[in-house]
Amino acid sequence: MLGVSHRDDNQSLRAIVGNTTAMTAARNGNTNPWPDGTILGKLVWKDSRHPLWQPALVPGELSHIEFMVKDSKKYANTGGWGFARWVGMELKPLNNDGGKPCFECQKAAAETDFVFTRPAPLP
Amino acid sequence: MLGVSHRDDNQSLRAIVGNTTAMTAARNGNTNPWPDGTILGKLVWKDSRHPLWQPALVPGELSHIEFMVKDSKKYANTGGWGFARWVGMELKPLNNDGGKPCFECQKAAAETDFVFTRPAPLP
Ligand code: HEC
Ligand code: HEC
Repeated sequence: MLGVSHRDDNQSLRAIVGNTTAMTAARNGNTNPWPDGTILGKLVWKDSRHPLWQPALVPGELSHIEFMVKDSKKYANTGGWGFARWVGMELKPLNNDGGKPCFECQKAAAETDFVFTRPAPLP
Repeated sequence: MLGVSHRDDNQSLRAIVGNTTAMTAARNGNTNPWPDGTILGKLVWKDSRHPLWQPALVPGELSHIEFMVKDSKKYANTGGWGFARWVGMELKPLNNDGGKPCFECQKAAAETDFVFTRPAPLP
């Protein structure tokens, strides 16, 4: 697990996870650029309130699961990242036009190799 | 990873994780009661705003890390759970009086074996 986040514009909770290449890179601070072979995943749930503890927002319905895969040659046109998204519990693949719309948005994080998530502080 | 949560009373983000016993129990829906040997961990960070994406709340300073360990004999006085908390990046152990104050609060989740977290919906 690399991090967690909460979006208060679209009321959703996220977990950001990585494969071993990603976790090793994060532990070593070797994330700009992330090495080839990195896979980052994000799981997104709609907010719900915990029935026994109202101030806690917890995962409700699964919204989507998405991935970024680093291969600086194969995905040279989109910052070295391949993009994929599956929607809902039925994991319906999103046709994302080779990742172009994803990349457009992830460009806002160009200074950190197109990745928003900064590994959560850990001892 | 079992779940994520956001508390909007005390502005903090949480990741809830489990050992293999916990993850297997969660996958099999075998969590009421959780089996002996279960270890649940919770990592708590103060909220911060992502500098490049304001609506995203992301982990700031580490607040504390805490655990619940299931041993129905050893911890019979506190619902079968042992409790521990370490505070801050320096992981200062909290003297928690044998888990009594933790248990008092976790009692609100008595109907789910004193555990609030319900494993996040996954396909
Ligand atoms: C409207 C803007 C926007 C679009 C479009 C977008 N993203 Fe993101 N993405 C973000 C933001 C902001 C974050 C970090 C905040 C968060 O946790 O949600 C993020 C995070 C991610 C992450 C976790 C790694 C990281 O950068 O923090 C993945 C993986 C990801 N996005 C994949 C995708 C895929 C795949 C698509 C297209 C199908 C896509 N994104 C489209 C804004 C966007
Ligand atoms: C004021 C109430 C309160 C007290 C006191 C409290 N907890 Fe909790 N605890 C909660 C709530 C509510 C959740 C679930 C929501 C969340 O994610 O924060 C939770 C979740 C947890 C979890 C994750 C598993 C679960 O039940 O969801 C652990 C582990 C945990 N607490 C350990 C402790 C320990 C150790 C202490 C004492 C040092 C403690 N708690 C004291 C309210 C409390």
